[in-house]
Amino acid sequence: MDILLINGPNINRTGKRKAEHYGEQTLEEINAEIADYARELGARCDMRQSNHEGEIIDWIQQAEEGYGGIVLNAGAYTHYSYAIRDAIECCSIPVVEVHMSNIHAREAFRHTSVIAPVCAGSIIGFGKQGYMLAVRALAER
Amino acid sequence: MDILLINGPNINRTGKRKAEHYGEQTLEEINAEIADYARELGARCDMRQSNHEGEIIDWIQQAEEGYGGIVLNAGAYTHYSYAIRDAIECCSIPVVEVHMSNIHAREAFRHTSVIAPVCAGSIIGFGKQGYMLAVRALAER
Amino acid sequence: MDILLINGPNINRTGKRKAEHYGEQTLEEINAEIADYARELGARCDMRQSNHEGEIIDWIQQAEEGYGGIVLNAGAYTHYSYAIRDAIECCSIPVVEVHMSNIHAREAFRHTSVIAPVCAGSIIGFGKQGYMLAVRALAER
Amino acid sequence: MDILLINGPNINRTGKRKAEHYGEQTLEEINAEIADYARELGARCDMRQSNHEGEIIDWIQQAEEGYGGIVLNAGAYTHYSYAIRDAIECCSIPVVEVHMSNIHAREAFRHTSVIAPVCAGSIIGFGKQGYMLAVRALAER
Amino acid sequence: MDILLINGPNINRTGKRKAEHYGEQTLEEINAEIADYARELGARCDMRQSNHEGEIIDWIQQAEEGYGGIVLNAGAYTHYSYAIRDAIECCSIPVVEVHMSNIHAREAFRHTSVIAPVCAGSIIGFGKQGYMLAVRALAER
Amino acid sequence: MDILLINGPNINRTGKRKAEHYGEQTLEEINAEIADYARELGARCDMRQSNHEGEIIDWIQQAEEGYGGIVLNAGAYTHYSYAIRDAIECCSIPVVEVHMSNIHAREAFRHTSVIAPVCAGSIIGFGKQGYMLAVRALAER
Amino acid sequence: MDILLINGPNINRTGKRKAEHYGEQTLEEINAEIADYARELGARCDMRQSNHEGEIIDWIQQAEEGYGGIVLNAGAYTHYSYAIRDAIECCSIPVVEVHMSNIHAREAFRHTSVIAPVCAGSIIGFGKQGYMLAVRALAER
Amino acid sequence: MDILLINGPNINRTGKRKAEHYGEQTLEEINAEIADYARELGARCDMRQSNHEGEIIDWIQQAEEGYGGIVLNAGAYTHYSYAIRDAIECCSIPVVEVHMSNIHAREAFRHTSVIAPVCAGSIIGFGKQGYMLAVRALAER
Amino acid sequence: MDILLINGPNINRTGKRKAEHYGEQTLEEINAEIADYARELGARCDMRQSNHEGEIIDWIQQAEEGYGGIVLNAGAYTHYSYAIRDAIECCSIPVVEVHMSNIHAREAFRHTSVIAPVCAGSIIGFGKQGYMLAVRALAER
Amino acid sequence: MDILLINGPNINRTGKRKAEHYGEQTLEEINAEIADYARELGARCDMRQSNHEGEIIDWIQQAEEGYGGIVLNAGAYTHYSYAIRDAIECCSIPVVEVHMSNIHAREAFRHTSVIAPVCAGSIIGFGKQGYMLAVRALAER
Amino acid sequence: MDILLINGPNINRTGKRKAEHYGEQTLEEINAEIADYARELGARCDMRQSNHEGEIIDWIQQAEEGYGGIVLNAGAYTHYSYAIRDAIECCSIPVVEVHMSNIHAREAFRHTSVIAPVCAGSIIGFGKQGYMLAVRALAER
Amino acid sequence: MDILLINGPNINRTGKRKAEHYGEQTLEEINAEIADYARELGARCDMRQSNHEGEIIDWIQQAEEGYGGIVLNAGAYTHYSYAIRDAIECCSIPVVEVHMSNIHAREAFRHTSVIAPVCAGSIIGFGKQGYMLAVRALAER
Repeated sequence: MDILLINGPNINRTGKRKAEHYGEQTLEEINAEIADYARELGARCDMRQSNHEGEIIDWIQQAEEGYGGIVLNAGAYTHYSYAIRDAIECCSIPVVEVHMSNIHAREAFRHTSVIAPVCAGSIIGFGKQGYMLAVRALAER
Repeated sequence: MDILLINGPNINRTGKRKAEHYGEQTLEEINAEIADYARELGARCDMRQSNHEGEIIDWIQQAEEGYGGIVLNAGAYTHYSYAIRDAIECCSIPVVEVHMSNIHAREAFRHTSVIAPVCAGSIIGFGKQGYMLAVRALAER
Repeated sequence: MDILLINGPNINRTGKRKAEHYGEQTLEEINAEIADYARELGARCDMRQSNHEGEIIDWIQQAEEGYGGIVLNAGAYTHYSYAIRDAIECCSIPVVEVHMSNIHAREAFRHTSVIAPVCAGSIIGFGKQGYMLAVRALAER
Repeated sequence: MDILLINGPNINRTGKRKAEHYGEQTLEEINAEIADYARELGARCDMRQSNHEGEIIDWIQQAEEGYGGIVLNAGAYTHYSYAIRDAIECCSIPVVEVHMSNIHAREAFRHTSVIAPVCAGSIIGFGKQGYMLAVRALAER
Repeated sequence: MDILLINGPNINRTGKRKAEHYGEQTLEEINAEIADYARELGARCDMRQSNHEGEIIDWIQQAEEGYGGIVLNAGAYTHYSYAIRDAIECCSIPVVEVHMSNIHAREAFRHTSVIAPVCAGSIIGFGKQGYMLAVRALAER
Repeated sequence: MDILLINGPNINRTGKRKAEHYGEQTLEEINAEIADYARELGARCDMRQSNHEGEIIDWIQQAEEGYGGIVLNAGAYTHYSYAIRDAIECCSIPVVEVHMSNIHAREAFRHTSVIAPVCAGSIIGFGKQGYMLAVRALAER
Repeated sequence: MDILLINGPNINRTGKRKAEHYGEQTLEEINAEIADYARELGARCDMRQSNHEGEIIDWIQQAEEGYGGIVLNAGAYTHYSYAIRDAIECCSIPVVEVHMSNIHAREAFRHTSVIAPVCAGSIIGFGKQGYMLAVRALAER
Repeated sequence: MDILLINGPNINRTGKRKAEHYGEQTLEEINAEIADYARELGARCDMRQSNHEGEIIDWIQQAEEGYGGIVLNAGAYTHYSYAIRDAIECCSIPVVEVHMSNIHAREAFRHTSVIAPVCAGSIIGFGKQGYMLAVRALAER
Repeated sequence: MDILLINGPNINRTGKRKAEHYGEQTLEEINAEIADYARELGARCDMRQSNHEGEIIDWIQQAEEGYGGIVLNAGAYTHYSYAIRDAIECCSIPVVEVHMSNIHAREAFRHTSVIAPVCAGSIIGFGKQGYMLAVRALAER
Repeated sequence: MDILLINGPNINRTGKRKAEHYGEQTLEEINAEIADYARELGARCDMRQSNHEGEIIDWIQQAEEGYGGIVLNAGAYTHYSYAIRDAIECCSIPVVEVHMSNIHAREAFRHTSVIAPVCAGSIIGFGKQGYMLAVRALAER
Repeated sequence: MDILLINGPNINRTGKRKAEHYGEQTLEEINAEIADYARELGARCDMRQSNHEGEIIDWIQQAEEGYGGIVLNAGAYTHYSYAIRDAIECCSIPVVEVHMSNIHAREAFRHTSVIAPVCAGSIIGFGKQGYMLAVRALAER
Repeated sequence: MDILLINGPNINRTGKRKAEHYGEQTLEEINAEIADYARELGARCDMRQSNHEGEIIDWIQQAEEGYGGIVLNAGAYTHYSYAIRDAIECCSIPVVEVHMSNIHAREAFRHTSVIAPVCAGSIIGFGKQGYMLAVRALAER
């Protein structure tokens, strides 16, 4: 199975900020580990990152062709982007929501995910391991 | 009168998703019908679509030069984009809000339009016919 | 097609109050224009006005026999009459909601329409032109 | 690693009710699969179920001795049991929250988890697979 | 000190709209005055403007290299862009929030700034003078 | 005992609409059954229906003379008519509230009854049987 | 000055109910006292009472011809009738709101008057004396 | 028909407390009357009472075998026990909600029943007679 | 009857500010008119003004000795001073609340009076005439 | 006087968790001190602890026989157990609410006590000393 | 230990008002009893009372010099004086909050204490005994 | 220009409390620096501090004579003193709001300023530098 992993705004700063929430590895290092992990499961995982809401929507729309599932960490867009929600809702392949930190243990605005209701499932609070659980969830489907 | 019709995020998926809300025609087919309809009224209608909030704002800002009115289906940005609202508010030509589905009969987050207060008017729930009523409303002004 | 146009409370004061919201023509003058407009479309439009919630419900219930659609400006009942909403919901012909002024640009209590979810569509903010767009929407259905 | 899997109220009805949310297998069948899955990971998984809030608290308090982690599907207590939350918060081993159905796509009262802020992580919407991802998350820790 | 001044959506319309809120000078004229003012303080000030949320985030992320502080008027994104907030929060140089108009004396949606909690400080209601006070605040730090 | 049964707005449409909520019998047929049922209990039951809030108030005020109790299905007025509530509150004979459908399982606006606090009791969700239980409750008092 | 005094729903029960709120005189007795009081001030006061929202609106609309002011106790309609509010707002003669009881010391729903913002003034809590103060306020204008 | 009557927390104090809400008979005396009443209708009614939320859930789950319906007065659990609600929702026999006092005329927290939406019907405010109406409603089904 | 008239914060600015709300006379001029008016009614009226919440409380506490009633315009303290409310509530002589402007037609924070529930009555929106109506209401008691 | 001290859920973990809130002594050690303290006052104090809501209700119901007062730390049930509240309300001996930590200085959900309105009094924030003050309050009554 | 007891607005009316909440003794009598009680504990207690928020703040600020603790009944200021809260928060000696009546059993506005989060502890509902428990709590510290 | 600098409640404790919010200098030291700073700008700055809401209002009212502008740090009164707000609103010289700490990054009650809508501008989060920016803003006006 080919999987598209999309990271949203500011996730490219992982490893450079807020180690208590995101750990000390950079996104590149984490991505490399996830790619290896996917390969072991017999899957392939492409990684993209953008700070642009519209670009994330474009990618979700295009993913139907060529991918069997999406792993999405929408960053702060999680909390207000009904446009990303609509993109997920009309996407025919499953989208799994991932958050590295436990968003329910942080500021109140992070407690609501407007995309959760239209995702196949959510995995929250497991750090980089969360991406791997998501890849596995899709691969074992 | 020259009219700019702007469709927002995910409207390019019309005809490919959620037929119960948006019907079975593609956006291209609908656009062609609207263009014909406008011509019958002696107007001209240009169509654009974008998933990018910023691009929609750019287009609204530029429309003053060359167009006499805007028909806008802002998709999910309708419900939270105060930036698009500001663009409309400082636009000197009239903007008519259109929604194909009856947004008041769907999820609660779709019941609020943050752009409605600064639009010339709103036409909601008439499917593709809504765009034509909007073009007529501008052309007959 | 025969259409019933129902105007609710205080709409009979149009032209006598609040010109900034409703224009300077009386309801009688507007009704005459709408009747002409309907005739041009090959339709017939009967007009009624009442300040009584119960009478508006009676009319909606009776309209199924003899009319193909209803154009309804429920005035302030728009914002709280769940009884009119129920009448619309169990009416087998389409009801189009019209407001002459942009209710979303006025007091907060006017921002909510309890009847919108059960109407076929809504046309808001186009002054008397709104009635004509509604007649057309029904006639072209 | 020895893991305690606690299922809360009404989960013992799985397979007997609401197949659209929980699938058609009984809890016993699901438990057997999870036990096998844990064994493959070199872990051991004990299963308990109770409809009694106090009993669930008792079990969480006692789990520190003998277990390395807890997988908890608190059922409807998820949404209001601050007493279970306190038990988790003063528990020295990690607790992973699991929900088989996507609680964010159901009734509003299911959208809030009062225990999420004190859990190590949450896995939502993957059916019985969610328990296995949780066991893996603990075993690979 | 080198300072990056970022203006958000619709601020490029300053001087062309809503003189009661923003005065009658264009953004270019205001920028020129600010540049002069900065030079007098021995600082250098670069100006950018964008209607794109993602582009503003890109700029904030990149500013750490080459600038000692940011002056940010995020326009309407001020009120809902948690993504810009995150970008500010993980930025190692100080960000000063500026609004030309008194946002607390305008529509209710403008009363909340989601970025204020993570800015070094806020300066509100002083028209173009606000930018200069912000430049001074950074330069004198 | 003589009992007055008052049905409010749109209940006269029973049997003609929304069979899933109200069943397939007409109000006339239901009324006939209730009258028979009352007679068996040695009571007499008069039936009235109105879409007019004011008329329902008039009837409640007049019922003290000639009736020993009122059975009231206020339809949608249940949810906002504080005027009917006041009429009930200053009525010296008991008023029993009835709803055929389970109003708590329908739209949110139907979950609140502003008249319940001043009624003798409420019977909700039993279809036409609810009227009979109400008649019995009054007759056995 | 000719004054129209309109009493709304259930005020005709005064003296027959809830003596702690309204005193023990009937509305007829109170009306007679007010008429005498008005005459002493050189004014004339006509009295009407209705339980029908629509009828109250009709009377307000017609009062412009023949009366110099209106004294209105709208009863429970005070708390939700935006239709009466609109009638007052487009009425060219002053309307004074009166409540015999202190509505702020009773149930929460009575604390809000939707008509107060468009009345010339409000007099609350003085029993029948309130009507007389209102008549005086209009007569001395 | 065999009916299970479940009384929840503190109902065993009936007759010993708060006579204004619950009357002066003990639960044992009321139960005896209900049993007689059921027998007259050709039904049999078993009575249980518990202060334990979990035990009430256990009983509802077990009732499917051996009973044709449940009469449930859940006491204060009515207002927050989503766990009891879930038990009712996945129970295949009808559950009728009963409250002896008029919960809508008491403290605000008693105005909401979280179990009402999943019950077959509700009977509120008739004292001990409410149980008998509920038994009859089930028996006559 | 001896009456104490207490004016709260900023009322001493009457005639110097906001003529649209308070008219153009100074407080001294208004006080003189009220004193004359009281004398005509055979009453005596003492006037005080303070910007200090505590001083207003002191005066209310002391007024019992020497006065038969209080006329109180608490200015902005009206909207939040529960301390003044308590002073009124334990005062054995009647307190009449007066506001010159129609507080319900101004900013939202002015719509709530925390002292209204414990006052004998309220007179709102009649300008300086309101004080005279209040004096009369007390004198005629 | 014989006093029953009831500790609710997770209080048995005192001394083993969260020293910043509860101190470092175990519940057994604290109980022993309280017993001594009671004896000095000529009272006797029995201690019980349960994680089960229903058991706490059972104990409150039974305490009337044999005890003169109850000291209750209901733990997290404080914040949502209306069932415990009802048990307290129909208990004829006084119940004193105690919390060791200052619940108002912790998470928002701990700021509301649903049992406080029906307790004789509350003592909050004094650590183990709080129990002793409560015992004294009862003993000196 | 020297203790400062501060009573806020209207507490000087104790014994003269609302005996059901505050008992029948005057503040002077209560103060005398507390002084005796303190002496028995080897402490000294000074009493002050003010209706002025600013004066209470002054006293709290000055108390650090000369006193070891403060007992504070802030009266109605409890519910909104964030200024008193700040004074307590930056005071280096402990402040114990006391209320004679059970504020949670009275009006809703009395249910919130804005000072509780920064006090050492709270004692509520024990009448004059509450002051003595507070003195003891400080003296035994 | 002569400027009046008013500091509200508890600001006199600056340097003695909460160094993380207010720094370690005393108010006297800060005032001296501000006075020097003003002199350099050719202005004169008088300083006052009070814990009394009424006194702050008195000063604002009197400032019109003798001063050209006010710099105001209203301390906690910022969040609820509508009386100070009214004083500012009817003051003919500009008032600049200053807060040393970033109030939006602290407790929720500090996020709302009721005086901001009527101030000329606000400067928040710059420590003592904020006063100087405010003085400059007024001096350069």
